[in-house]
Amino acid sequence: MPNRRDVFICETGPRDGLQILDTFVPTEVKCRLIDAIVEAGLPEVEVGSFVPAKVVPQFADIDAIVAHAQRHRGRTIVSALTPNLKGAENALKAGVDVVNFVISASEAHNQANVRRTVSEQLDGFRAVRAAVDAVSADKRPHLLGAISTSFGCSIAGRVSEKEVLRVATAYAEIGADEIALADTVGYGTPPLIKAIVSAVRREIGNRIPLRLHLHDTLGLGLANAAAGLEVGIRRFDAAVSGLGGCPFAPGARGNIVTEDLIFMLEEMGLKTGIDLEKLMATRAILVPHVAAHYLTGHLHEAGIPKALRKSA
Amino acid sequence: MPNRRDVFICETGPRDGLQILDTFVPTEVKCRLIDAIVEAGLPEVEVGSFVPAKVVPQFADIDAIVAHAQRHRGRTIVSALTPNLKGAENALKAGVDVVNFVISASEAHNQANVRRTVSEQLDGFRAVRAAVDAVSADKRPHLLGAISTSFGCSIAGRVSEKEVLRVATAYAEIGADEIALADTVGYGTPPLIKAIVSAVRREIGNRIPLRLHLHDTLGLGLANAAAGLEVGIRRFDAAVSGLGGCPFAPGARGNIVTEDLIFMLEEMGLKTGIDLEKLMATRAILVPHVAAHYLTGHLHEAGIPKALRKSA
Repeated sequence: MPNRRDVFICETGPRDGLQILDTFVPTEVKCRLIDAIVEAGLPEVEVGSFVPAKVVPQFADIDAIVAHAQRHRGRTIVSALTPNLKGAENALKAGVDVVNFVISASEAHNQANVRRTVSEQLDGFRAVRAAVDAVSADKRPHLLGAISTSFGCSIAGRVSEKEVLRVATAYAEIGADEIALADTVGYGTPPLIKAIVSAVRREIGNRIPLRLHLHDTLGLGLANAAAGLEVGIRRFDAAVSGLGGCPFAPGARGNIVTEDLIFMLEEMGLKTGIDLEKLMATRAILVPHVAAHYLTGHLHEAGIPKALRKSA
Repeated sequence: MPNRRDVFICETGPRDGLQILDTFVPTEVKCRLIDAIVEAGLPEVEVGSFVPAKVVPQFADIDAIVAHAQRHRGRTIVSALTPNLKGAENALKAGVDVVNFVISASEAHNQANVRRTVSEQLDGFRAVRAAVDAVSADKRPHLLGAISTSFGCSIAGRVSEKEVLRVATAYAEIGADEIALADTVGYGTPPLIKAIVSAVRREIGNRIPLRLHLHDTLGLGLANAAAGLEVGIRRFDAAVSGLGGCPFAPGARGNIVTEDLIFMLEEMGLKTGIDLEKLMATRAILVPHVAAHYLTGHLHEAGIPKALRKSA
């Protein structure tokens, strides 16, 4: 049973980490990875995306993955991403706990990502909300609205607070159960994180939970997480071994590293309910299947500082 | 001539970066590195240590290095580290602008580092203060007192505020012109940085400048720099390409990366007066002489984000 957690972390490696790979990770390996993540105590795992296999071949096995992950129900929440109604319908059929919808704050990024305008994408979210509401209340999943490029865009550069608020207020009005502010390309800085989070919070009130999805492209991932904590964020996405990357910046780092985030939080006195050593053991599952440059993380390089543990 | 700078950065790569290497970097290469750093606009460069060559062979050429660096006088400040009076006397003879003395807050670390108690090391600082004061006023260097392991120790683990304040107040009483709080092994977290900086500031008042010397061992380097900014720190040490490391953690990262720090600060609207592209070109000087695992930095991996520059 979960311990009391001060901070809730969703492991997004199986989705946002694996989607960038050129090579297919065998279904059996994905299942082992998810099992190990759950075993370490992660309260939510984003296990993949409901997108056409011809667009992202990595998720051709998403139904099998969700079916496998569901054996952990009660210990963890199974979430999956989708950019459209068709994907959401498949996610509902598969029986995920969280449907994670995505709209970019940047018009240019939304066009590049899903070939629709932000306005069309908001219509899509309305349709997904209706589809979710059609599920009987006892089986109805949570609907999360993610806002990509909330802190900058690799195409448009800076993204204005107004662009983020436009999507956030629409999500709130349509009925998102949670909103994720995503630093998709890792351009955010601590003051920007604070400003945007605070502006969104002011605009949508306190009813809807907010989470941060951060990337470490420019080394600011944990600085931005710390900034988020200061403005009240207690829900984060992160990826084991820093899986992920940016298609526009070959060699760039991916999501913030779950292991490093946990270390920071626990050192700050914030409980995550996660067993760090067990989580670090996921590296061994990844090594045979993921190119070495995608596997990062300071704790993996330096080791867990024994002296701190002794004097804790 | 220097632009107005909001944040002052001392480049410590030639000292704290090179000292960990097993191989001697040729004097000519060190000089080229320093030239390139100065050319990029760094207002201070810690060029090496005055320590016996049999202890740290890397600095056998320190006199030649200081003599070379002095050609940049008026554009940059030339500093050098020393752990004792003998080294300080040699630094004074060489004519450095800043003598950087070092004492560990952790008794165990001070013993391991300089084989003296903290109390004996403070006596050493008194003697160095007197030696510096014996230099005629027009040539008298600035005396910086660094406090190693201010945020944790690889031997003792946690270091108490009391241990840091003991050294800081002694430095202030004896007459340090500046105090550097050093996260020597990179165990600090943002709240700890804020707590210790604030405690030292309260204890010693506002007269003596404070700087932070941060390492990125556990990925918290820039998060800690951002925390420092929030409690008024405007002076930082950093190393190009993240040079440095920890003898107790092979594979661990070194100092915070100067390039990444500059990017963060400038994105936050804080001027550093440094030309980032010129500074990134120092990588080419290092590559033939420094093992690849010592050369890090997110901007070096991802590139300077062009989209941000366009929309600036």
